[in-house]
Amino acid sequence: MTGRLAVVGLGPGDARWLTPEAETALGAADALFGYGPYLDRAPARAGQRRHASDNREEGARARAALESAAAGANVALVSGGDPGVFAMASAVCEQVEQGPPAWRELELAIVPGVTAMLAVAARVGAPLGHDFCALSLSDNLKPWPVIERRLDAAAQAGFVLALYNPISQSRPWQLATAFERLRGHLPVTTPTIFGRAVGRADESIVVTTLEAADPAGADMATLVIVGSAQTRVVPRPGQAPLVYTPRSIGSALA
Amino acid sequence: MTGRLAVVGLGPGDARWLTPEAETALGAADALFGYGPYLDRAPARAGQRRHASDNREEGARARAALESAAAGANVALVSGGDPGVFAMASAVCEQVEQGPPAWRELELAIVPGVTAMLAVAARVGAPLGHDFCALSLSDNLKPWPVIERRLDAAAQAGFVLALYNPISQSRPWQLATAFERLRGHLPVTTPTIFGRAVGRADESIVVTTLEAADPAGADMATLVIVGSAQTRVVPRPGQAPLVYTPRSIGSALA
Repeated sequence: MTGRLAVVGLGPGDARWLTPEAETALGAADALFGYGPYLDRAPARAGQRRHASDNREEGARARAALESAAAGANVALVSGGDPGVFAMASAVCEQVEQGPPAWRELELAIVPGVTAMLAVAARVGAPLGHDFCALSLSDNLKPWPVIERRLDAAAQAGFVLALYNPISQSRPWQLATAFERLRGHLPVTTPTIFGRAVGRADESIVVTTLEAADPAGADMATLVIVGSAQTRVVPRPGQAPLVYTPRSIGSALA
Repeated sequence: MTGRLAVVGLGPGDARWLTPEAETALGAADALFGYGPYLDRAPARAGQRRHASDNREEGARARAALESAAAGANVALVSGGDPGVFAMASAVCEQVEQGPPAWRELELAIVPGVTAMLAVAARVGAPLGHDFCALSLSDNLKPWPVIERRLDAAAQAGFVLALYNPISQSRPWQLATAFERLRGHLPVTTPTIFGRAVGRADESIVVTTLEAADPAGADMATLVIVGSAQTRVVPRPGQAPLVYTPRSIGSALA
């Protein structure tokens, strides 16, 4: 008899975004695996083993969780946001495909969550209210020219862009290059949102324009949304402006 | 003194996907507005007024909710999935922009939720594990040529596609046309997923290929995911296959 593995999305930082399904999966697990700061967000339970790993060891972490489940444990592998969006679910599937046949027989559940772009969008209005793309700016796992081609295609076709992994110490120039490229396709006034640490105590949300967007305002914990030519800003007295992309576009754009 | 308006995402059908924040917002409201079947999913509370409206009256529903809040009520406007993704948040922002100045002074909160594509993806593995687009196939609010241009751009650039509003009685041909168009860009073996009523008792998840994808398998309650050329299917003995898009792509694609 083998165990089971749940890949659990915690949502962004705020515990009020943890779904009941995720909470149940965390509580039922004998063993938790994950990046340390994510593990710290799982409610403590006596007798539960916790295996913290570094942020960049997705493959090894997925294998360790699968091995533990194959040995009979009820395992939860925790992921920030939604596990299926630039997170652990894909890493687990990859290891299942490449690993021993027994791993294909494990009971595997992916527990969805609120992904960062939805939480950042909610803070400012509805910038993702029309067609949009989610794109990782990390060129650790794909060549930079592929990213440029996708930025071009998405912006030219009128998609709003949610940029994950916009910048890090080892990838310092990519976000500036992306902004510069997008300025070639979009109005300089295009609303641009920096959502940092959304749902955490140190949350910061900045609404600016593509022209003024400063890559120095982003770090590893930031999600960037770049609007389309349709995205609008509604000033509000005494409150932050609303940013939204209308549901409809006119036939003049066809 | 005026009231407040929360636009609340219920997540897909399963109550285990309702976040604590959403539950709190629903419980705190004096008045609930929304499409009838969504209202039925909000836990009952004595003394709470409920205003059900038809599915296609987003603008009128948003105005009614704003009017009620401006009159002093604590209002929750409910939305399936995430309110910011092809749902009510954008309609509310649009009405705030176009409505009386007092609406800009209201306290407005958008409460994010699990959107359908995340729940459908979780059921099959991690098809959204790499860059992806969310695109509505409804040409009620945008011209069909815009949709075709976006399908082309997304598929050619290697994005996985999550198709919202794929088909309805009044839009019977659009999904077949979209599949035909995508077949011109993607391998015929590209994994294609029909996720119907995810999280509800009548949930149905079908994994097929772009070649075999039959629009008759979709209805108003269906979310369709079309993979990229990178998306993989992992057969599992005695279980449904896993479908995932790897996190990395090789430099040969650059």
